Amino acid sequence: MSQLEKKTEAWSALFSEPMSELVKRYTASVFFDKRLALADIQGSLAHAAMLAKQGVISAKDHEDIQRGMAQIRGEVESGAFEWKLDLEDVHLNIEARLTQLVGDAGKRLHTGRSRNDQVATDVRLWLRGEIDLISGLLVELQEKLVDIADKNVDTVMPGFTHLQVAQPVSFGHHMLAYVEMFARDHDRMQDVRRRTNQLPLGSAALAGTTYPLDREFVAQQLGMEGVCQNSLDAVSDRDFAIEFTAAASIAMVHVSRLSEELVIWMSQNFGFIKIADRFTTGSSIMPQKKNPDVPELARGKAGRVVGHLMALITLMKGQPLAYNKDNQEDKEPLFDTVDTLKDTLRIFAEMVEGITVKPQAMEQAALKGYATATDLADYLVKKGLPFRDAHEVVAHAVKAATSHNCDLSELPLAVLQQFNPSIQKDVYDALSLRGSLGARNTLGGTAPAQVKAQVERHRARLSQQT
Amino acid sequence: MSQLEKKTEAWSALFSEPMSELVKRYTASVFFDKRLALADIQGSLAHAAMLAKQGVISAKDHEDIQRGMAQIRGEVESGAFEWKLDLEDVHLNIEARLTQLVGDAGKRLHTGRSRNDQVATDVRLWLRGEIDLISGLLVELQEKLVDIADKNVDTVMPGFTHLQVAQPVSFGHHMLAYVEMFARDHDRMQDVRRRTNQLPLGSAALAGTTYPLDREFVAQQLGMEGVCQNSLDAVSDRDFAIEFTAAASIAMVHVSRLSEELVIWMSQNFGFIKIADRFTTGSSIMPQKKNPDVPELARGKAGRVVGHLMALITLMKGQPLAYNKDNQEDKEPLFDTVDTLKDTLRIFAEMVEGITVKPQAMEQAALKGYATATDLADYLVKKGLPFRDAHEVVAHAVKAATSHNCDLSELPLAVLQQFNPSIQKDVYDALSLRGSLGARNTLGGTAPAQVKAQVERHRARLSQQT
Amino acid sequence: MSQLEKKTEAWSALFSEPMSELVKRYTASVFFDKRLALADIQGSLAHAAMLAKQGVISAKDHEDIQRGMAQIRGEVESGAFEWKLDLEDVHLNIEARLTQLVGDAGKRLHTGRSRNDQVATDVRLWLRGEIDLISGLLVELQEKLVDIADKNVDTVMPGFTHLQVAQPVSFGHHMLAYVEMFARDHDRMQDVRRRTNQLPLGSAALAGTTYPLDREFVAQQLGMEGVCQNSLDAVSDRDFAIEFTAAASIAMVHVSRLSEELVIWMSQNFGFIKIADRFTTGSSIMPQKKNPDVPELARGKAGRVVGHLMALITLMKGQPLAYNKDNQEDKEPLFDTVDTLKDTLRIFAEMVEGITVKPQAMEQAALKGYATATDLADYLVKKGLPFRDAHEVVAHAVKAATSHNCDLSELPLAVLQQFNPSIQKDVYDALSLRGSLGARNTLGGTAPAQVKAQVERHRARLSQQT
Amino acid sequence: MSQLEKKTEAWSALFSEPMSELVKRYTASVFFDKRLALADIQGSLAHAAMLAKQGVISAKDHEDIQRGMAQIRGEVESGAFEWKLDLEDVHLNIEARLTQLVGDAGKRLHTGRSRNDQVATDVRLWLRGEIDLISGLLVELQEKLVDIADKNVDTVMPGFTHLQVAQPVSFGHHMLAYVEMFARDHDRMQDVRRRTNQLPLGSAALAGTTYPLDREFVAQQLGMEGVCQNSLDAVSDRDFAIEFTAAASIAMVHVSRLSEELVIWMSQNFGFIKIADRFTTGSSIMPQKKNPDVPELARGKAGRVVGHLMALITLMKGQPLAYNKDNQEDKEPLFDTVDTLKDTLRIFAEMVEGITVKPQAMEQAALKGYATATDLADYLVKKGLPFRDAHEVVAHAVKAATSHNCDLSELPLAVLQQFNPSIQKDVYDALSLRGSLGARNTLGGTAPAQVKAQVERHRARLSQQT
Repeated sequence: MSQLEKKTEAWSALFSEPMSELVKRYTASVFFDKRLALADIQGSLAHAAMLAKQGVISAKDHEDIQRGMAQIRGEVESGAFEWKLDLEDVHLNIEARLTQLVGDAGKRLHTGRSRNDQVATDVRLWLRGEIDLISGLLVELQEKLVDIADKNVDTVMPGFTHLQVAQPVSFGHHMLAYVEMFARDHDRMQDVRRRTNQLPLGSAALAGTTYPLDREFVAQQLGMEGVCQNSLDAVSDRDFAIEFTAAASIAMVHVSRLSEELVIWMSQNFGFIKIADRFTTGSSIMPQKKNPDVPELARGKAGRVVGHLMALITLMKGQPLAYNKDNQEDKEPLFDTVDTLKDTLRIFAEMVEGITVKPQAMEQAALKGYATATDLADYLVKKGLPFRDAHEVVAHAVKAATSHNCDLSELPLAVLQQFNPSIQKDVYDALSLRGSLGARNTLGGTAPAQVKAQVERHRARLSQQT
Repeated sequence: MSQLEKKTEAWSALFSEPMSELVKRYTASVFFDKRLALADIQGSLAHAAMLAKQGVISAKDHEDIQRGMAQIRGEVESGAFEWKLDLEDVHLNIEARLTQLVGDAGKRLHTGRSRNDQVATDVRLWLRGEIDLISGLLVELQEKLVDIADKNVDTVMPGFTHLQVAQPVSFGHHMLAYVEMFARDHDRMQDVRRRTNQLPLGSAALAGTTYPLDREFVAQQLGMEGVCQNSLDAVSDRDFAIEFTAAASIAMVHVSRLSEELVIWMSQNFGFIKIADRFTTGSSIMPQKKNPDVPELARGKAGRVVGHLMALITLMKGQPLAYNKDNQEDKEPLFDTVDTLKDTLRIFAEMVEGITVKPQAMEQAALKGYATATDLADYLVKKGLPFRDAHEVVAHAVKAATSHNCDLSELPLAVLQQFNPSIQKDVYDALSLRGSLGARNTLGGTAPAQVKAQVERHRARLSQQT
Repeated sequence: MSQLEKKTEAWSALFSEPMSELVKRYTASVFFDKRLALADIQGSLAHAAMLAKQGVISAKDHEDIQRGMAQIRGEVESGAFEWKLDLEDVHLNIEARLTQLVGDAGKRLHTGRSRNDQVATDVRLWLRGEIDLISGLLVELQEKLVDIADKNVDTVMPGFTHLQVAQPVSFGHHMLAYVEMFARDHDRMQDVRRRTNQLPLGSAALAGTTYPLDREFVAQQLGMEGVCQNSLDAVSDRDFAIEFTAAASIAMVHVSRLSEELVIWMSQNFGFIKIADRFTTGSSIMPQKKNPDVPELARGKAGRVVGHLMALITLMKGQPLAYNKDNQEDKEPLFDTVDTLKDTLRIFAEMVEGITVKPQAMEQAALKGYATATDLADYLVKKGLPFRDAHEVVAHAVKAATSHNCDLSELPLAVLQQFNPSIQKDVYDALSLRGSLGARNTLGGTAPAQVKAQVERHRARLSQQT
Repeated sequence: MSQLEKKTEAWSALFSEPMSELVKRYTASVFFDKRLALADIQGSLAHAAMLAKQGVISAKDHEDIQRGMAQIRGEVESGAFEWKLDLEDVHLNIEARLTQLVGDAGKRLHTGRSRNDQVATDVRLWLRGEIDLISGLLVELQEKLVDIADKNVDTVMPGFTHLQVAQPVSFGHHMLAYVEMFARDHDRMQDVRRRTNQLPLGSAALAGTTYPLDREFVAQQLGMEGVCQNSLDAVSDRDFAIEFTAAASIAMVHVSRLSEELVIWMSQNFGFIKIADRFTTGSSIMPQKKNPDVPELARGKAGRVVGHLMALITLMKGQPLAYNKDNQEDKEPLFDTVDTLKDTLRIFAEMVEGITVKPQAMEQAALKGYATATDLADYLVKKGLPFRDAHEVVAHAVKAATSHNCDLSELPLAVLQQFNPSIQKDVYDALSLRGSLGARNTLGGTAPAQVKAQVERHRARLSQQT
């Protein structure tokens, strides 16, 4: 009977009693780390290939391991694999099953490695795949946002600062602000991927190993960009998990900002948009309700991911080298961050498509709040006033319009001229929403010509990322 | 066919399409909030009793509801209850089943309430029960710590500040420091309980209800100490969840401090204690290892709970009144905090019992680092030196002892007298570990007499909390 | 020359070199902890009085210390006190000055204490005072909110869930929701105060002391409710700082929620309120802007306080007993939390007074979104329909009203009767805003009678807290 | 009198009253954002140069602005500049002074920009400079660590996992683990720099501007790598601040891990190292103490920086576009993060140099805990045993050695052969510390040859970064 088969009795001959049931449940990770099974097998196969190449195990052992692992992979994928709490984690479960299937070859697989470098390798392999999925979702979401922007280049809405009407902007321009954010998120994910895609395997427990391993061969087999250069660091480093979760937190902050806006825009007093019924829910008591549950939940889930970031940092703070069991607590926050981010990006890409824009409500709102006051100031500057003086002139004009309860564009020319005699009839072009919009025609500005150009730029950029 | 049975088609007649499958999975809570099922039933029964008393529903309806709920409770407890994703959450699942079982009476149960006040009530009821369990576990852990303290009143160890040897302390005294911490945690839990144990039910969606409810009756039925006095606040308040998680975080910080010490004390260079084999695990590669996995994991789990605290605060920050769907994200962090804290307290109570103390190693360590230097200063003060001058005299003596590579107590009297002529032979009493220990005999001090008295005080106190 | 005067040369005779300048700046706390000066003096005077009473120092020494401290207090209050970096912290600065003023008596003051118990005492004394100020500010803010509620008992606004119009509520009722929150904050502060107001002094460095101290006498002198019972815990415990910051975070979350609403309500599309010009600022570019800077900043400052909570928890996690220098990092987050909370509460109390309510805009908004749909369902229940069936009937009615682009109350009776024949003319009472409001007349509901009663209850309650 | 000079009376003509004093103090940022003064001037000069180039202002205006700014820069650098609370922030203070000095040209400077894009530009410019300083400090710290590693390639210490003796490692190897961490930090800082070094200026308030700006010219003048492509995003984005603080948090986690080890290694029971007296402090009560204050404080400051990260994320979560006043709260956390990280890196570079290594204590510690047990297992594998079986054999051997209270290498050959007959005399080579060390001779392993090679690699790498 192999050592692993006797684990219910004691960890090894050194232990005088088995682990208590309570302790088993507290310390075991198998019920969440089994998610790493395919990465674990992939890593083991590369390790075995290298051991064979280096003559540490025989070709026969290598074949046995390959055959056994193929069967285990099938069992895992079909759900037939029987996960055992007594075997603590995904690694021992798979190794025990392998030994059961192929005998001594299975017992030789763990030569020159430890669970410490093994789990670090598994998590990195798995996370690399997830980053690629997330990157794809970020591209998809950007594409959907670019589509809605393209359709709304000329839709005028009030731009807000401090949630006060500021200046007219194109709704398309507003949507493209989020494209910028998600593009940065994509960029960050690529940086994290690069630092994640390094091989710890071969560091063994903490100090390297006495076997003539070829770590660069393993890295190549696994498509990794480099080999961790210090064994102590390799088994204890979780920077990549923190960094990923920080990048995910920023992405979720972007989602939460968009969500906040969607919720405000759907509120009856704004009424700027509708989202498709399939993204809303009703109320158990109020029969008229259609609630924007999806953006609200997403906003809430930003908190969740931020919590995971804090958990991971707190976890690592003050740990001496090298591996400590605290590190096992890295998995659940990381897994849940990946799940939450993927689900959220996927649902947002779908939901953005289902947005119905209400241009009239937007335009009406832009007519409140003197959105073109800055245009009047700029008009005066062009007539020769220093900007600061023009600013003060317009403050007087706005005060007058407020007391007349009308827009600046509704003040008669004679009244406007009381504030500054240089004002002429052409002022009304500057004071119109579309005049104001079109005038902001420099790089990054909201003029339709600029927005259209940005749509093209993004389309070209995104087509290369898919 | 009832409205809830048609939910797969659309939320209500108002909705033109069913929720998308993706949205269902994203927004549904049933797979985690089913944990509230018994609290939900308990709340519904109290609500129904009150509706009947107030004549809002008939006695027959009340009986039907009671009968239906009894069956549902049985189904839930046996695991036979079929939870449906289409029915979103625990509340609609139970209500739909009730209506299936008892017809119109089931459809009348939701009169005068909303899921908003219902879920707030459920969570409070459930959390109250969990706080009671946690309080019991805190008492148990304190008892175990008092037991080990009692056995080690006279065990001398080096007390540390800055992890440098400071002064000799009783190991019992050290253990009682943690009793103080967990006693404060217990105290905090009672405060949270009081603020949790208030009834939101009757607030309906956000504004109260048009039915003549008797909310105080419901509170009394549920053993609650008061009724939430403002309906808007009642449905949107999650203070109790944040406050509980903050209290849990502090408790986990205490656990993490104890864990840090256990890990250091088990390290071979300290060797102060052993913990029973059943609380340790081995290494997959290093055959000699017995690792203190439990305290390490607990230290790591402190990060987890802190993360949940951050998630909850971030969640609530900036939410307008009243209920928003963001709030649904309160549950998983809260549930996991409860689970983590309970498991950890339980395992620590068990583990503390399994600690083997090694008094020789502790005493030997206390002889390093000039632990009785302060006693020499105090000795000089009693001879008339101002404390600050005595402090400086001793610094010189320590310097000399260091260069002789010996303890202060090993310096000959003649040498000591070179630093201050008032030093006499009785100085060696002050310089001994036990002399130093026994001399700190004021309230809260480490003298065995004080420690013994504290053990008795705690025993008396704890016996009243069980 | 006294030891402290030679500190520029070396810490004590034991040290072969002075601290590096960089290290001095890094480790010194005097430039922030001097804020504790008056608490430090207060604690020292109580300690000296006890030492004299116990015969540890002479009456003459006690008098000298009192005289010296009186002068130092004057110097601190007038700003004349010269704080020195070389003397590290507030404690050594004051002690050195005392010795300069009164000689040996000053050197005797530190008998039987350490900076470890001294700083813990100082922070607790200081925080107790700040909690009292904060409690007063919480009462004041509640009073201002009750005042505005009182004036707006009958002001109808749309109550929101999910920021969608839900049911009509009284604006007074809405304001009282915040009174509930700040009342809980006050309650929490009292709990924190109780656990803060315990005396660490007499614990010395970590183990108690060899002098016959009377710690209960000191506690009594300082108005403290109890004596820390374990010296190791006393010098290393910072629970009270974490707990205070957690309570402050919850209070800031409440402020952030109110802020979010104020910002939304001031947005032109809502226009529910105006805040006085003195609480707004303009834009450097847009002449028409009046921005709600105060609520926005307060919302932002919630993040700041939460950050401090995180800092404090992370700080304490995993620290072995007893005092470690990490603890010095407790002060700046705690100080800034106190400052931020006090400033914010003060400015909100002032700002709430300056709110102008616009009842017409509120009422108009309540007419959008079918706010009385639940009332129609309740109407049908009173006619005998089960609630769930009534809910579905109203969904159909809302759908019809939406397609007619009118409110439910604008549908002709004949049309309403198509949905359910039991509907009669009196339905229009239920469908009116004021009818709906008045009907929610149970404890905690929004009916004006309830709101008025709550105003009275709060007035009575608050009058006892001032 | 210019508008800004009248700010004490009211923000502009639109405001009916001045800001309250309390509000001024609450909302003003000048007392912390004046740190941006030089970046603000730099940005303004680039803006003015572009305005002149584009013909928006005259050459004379441009000269006036340059002359005025030169004087202001001198005043700021000499400390003569008078900062006014009434002028809110660094931007208005400088602009008002400029107008005072050069009249209308000063009033024209703000043409085509807003404080929203101005502050975003200032912070990015300033942070870019700080990142460069931090990168330099990271290089310096790595160099010092490589130096100490180089001197200790052959120093044997026990490598720990779970703080239990695991396998012998080179102290040089251990130091190089931290070099890997700080190298990653450097890498991350470069990524943050790239995303920070983008130009928001020209986005004006939120929508771009009506003047024919040449934003690429401004970017070029300021050495920026690109231009923010969306005006709404440009003024509201604070990703770079969050990302920087996340990178700083990870760096502080590394510092905290090193600190934890230094503290443990200095504890008398380890005694692995001494740090120079100038990095330690004494105790006010215990004359013998030399406390490792610097590493402890640094460990504590990790919490501080993490708190700032949390503050920044919480701040941004859920903000609608574009600029909101909440954003002003980004500065203090960011500034303090920069200060803390710079101070900490600088002091660590200095402190690492002052470490005295005690090789005997390290080697003695490595002889406890059966550090070479894995070597015995590997020895058996080379004799043909599968690793899992060898692991179990060694567990038995360790058990025997434990009961004999001796090391594995002290067991007689005959005894060892009882566990497995293939064991021969050459086993004692494998069981020696240096034999074990030298045998881990693969890439990343602890064998002196590997460590030496890594030292060379780092030296070459770092020489290119200075």
